[in-house]
Amino acid sequence: MKIVVLGAGNVATHLAWAFKENGHDIAQVYSRTQLSAQALALQLDTDFCTLPSLLKNADIYIYALSDNALESVIQQVTISSGIHAHTAGSININIFEKKFENYGVFYPLQTFTKEQEVDFSNVPIFVEGNNEAVTETLFGLAKNLTQKPFIADSDKRIRLHIAAVFACNFTNYFYTLASDILEKQSIPFEILQPLILETAAKIQSVRPHDAQTGPARRNDTKTIQKHIEMIENEDLNKLYATLSSQISERYKI
Amino acid sequence: MKIVVLGAGNVATHLAWAFKENGHDIAQVYSRTQLSAQALALQLDTDFCTLPSLLKNADIYIYALSDNALESVIQQVTISSGIHAHTAGSININIFEKKFENYGVFYPLQTFTKEQEVDFSNVPIFVEGNNEAVTETLFGLAKNLTQKPFIADSDKRIRLHIAAVFACNFTNYFYTLASDILEKQSIPFEILQPLILETAAKIQSVRPHDAQTGPARRNDTKTIQKHIEMIENEDLNKLYATLSSQISERYKI
Repeated sequence: MKIVVLGAGNVATHLAWAFKENGHDIAQVYSRTQLSAQALALQLDTDFCTLPSLLKNADIYIYALSDNALESVIQQVTISSGIHAHTAGSININIFEKKFENYGVFYPLQTFTKEQEVDFSNVPIFVEGNNEAVTETLFGLAKNLTQKPFIADSDKRIRLHIAAVFACNFTNYFYTLASDILEKQSIPFEILQPLILETAAKIQSVRPHDAQTGPARRNDTKTIQKHIEMIENEDLNKLYATLSSQISERYKI
Repeated sequence: MKIVVLGAGNVATHLAWAFKENGHDIAQVYSRTQLSAQALALQLDTDFCTLPSLLKNADIYIYALSDNALESVIQQVTISSGIHAHTAGSININIFEKKFENYGVFYPLQTFTKEQEVDFSNVPIFVEGNNEAVTETLFGLAKNLTQKPFIADSDKRIRLHIAAVFACNFTNYFYTLASDILEKQSIPFEILQPLILETAAKIQSVRPHDAQTGPARRNDTKTIQKHIEMIENEDLNKLYATLSSQISERYKI
């Protein structure tokens, strides 16, 4: 398939590489800034453009743009053929509605970082099309990249995205809070790395509800109280109290 | 070393095995209930007792008991020789103060589950002794099990425990919340496993502050608002709003 990738950020970069490695032809890369468009195009040995009105002909246009940029870029696209699909978890498919005949969503459920390689074969990809033919094409493309292709409508996908925010974004924020606490004690963050990895590894085979440990799980009110008294930061303090009470409530007999 | 292990739960079981595998002599296992005492003793091919007054002579007594049980068990112990050390993150060393001459703490920073094997060589262990000789002995024992032995006083250890509650216990609770959301959509939790593993893997090489992604990190207020409107559960809703605002605040330019 001939694919044009719009965007040059983490998702765009990882997806473009995955397409290329699976034998697809990356016909062009679009990015607002020449520096990033050129850099990614060079990597992929393809052309680039910095104006949505200069897109080449292709079978599929993948919009891996920030949620805020998406709408304005769509408005500036002049080409009307091909399938136009965005990669956003929380944007409805109908953002393309009045503009194109064939459109959809191609949402990979993973967190992407520039430095970190991603094994796409294990990344769930959720697709949605505005008609059966589009759904089928996008599903085929997903199947090409991963062992876990799925079809999901926009409502389901947004709920999935909310779950991912808890499981990934908020979780990472708690790593940061833990890191802040250690820093104050001059303890290097590395100390927590095995614990964090084990916590994530555990739920690959045990349901998270069953994997829960800690003072709140045991309803160990003495320890909880002691911790709350020791946490000076007000935000942290409230979070600790709120989450402990929710956990204790959930597991109370 | 001749070691008596008090407790038959997750920490006791994993520690006892690690001691045995590293050539120490598990002289006896104590647990309040005969069933669990006997089961662990059988596994380890050693003796057991169900009364703290029946402890055998040993070099080290490891109290791997719940925080609530610890104090009452200590009161019932009649033997006074040997080093007595507990494994609790948030209990001060002075819980042993008036009872024994030599005592301390032996705190492994990891989450233990019965079914899951643990590679102790990678688990940080924090020790504390009431005198230098005890600290040295416990440090030596820790060094025997892990490449990461540390000395930490009670105050430092409790703060470490608080950091671990954020990085492990609260994090696992977020996996559970995500699992709840998926369940309502009849999506299997397995869908999130690669994302969760990648989130934990990432911070093995990137600082968590730098690894942060998601709507709040981008200050994507539209998506945040959409998510908040879609979360019906009130607790979840408040959590989402609180954490998003804390993250946005942290990363605002």
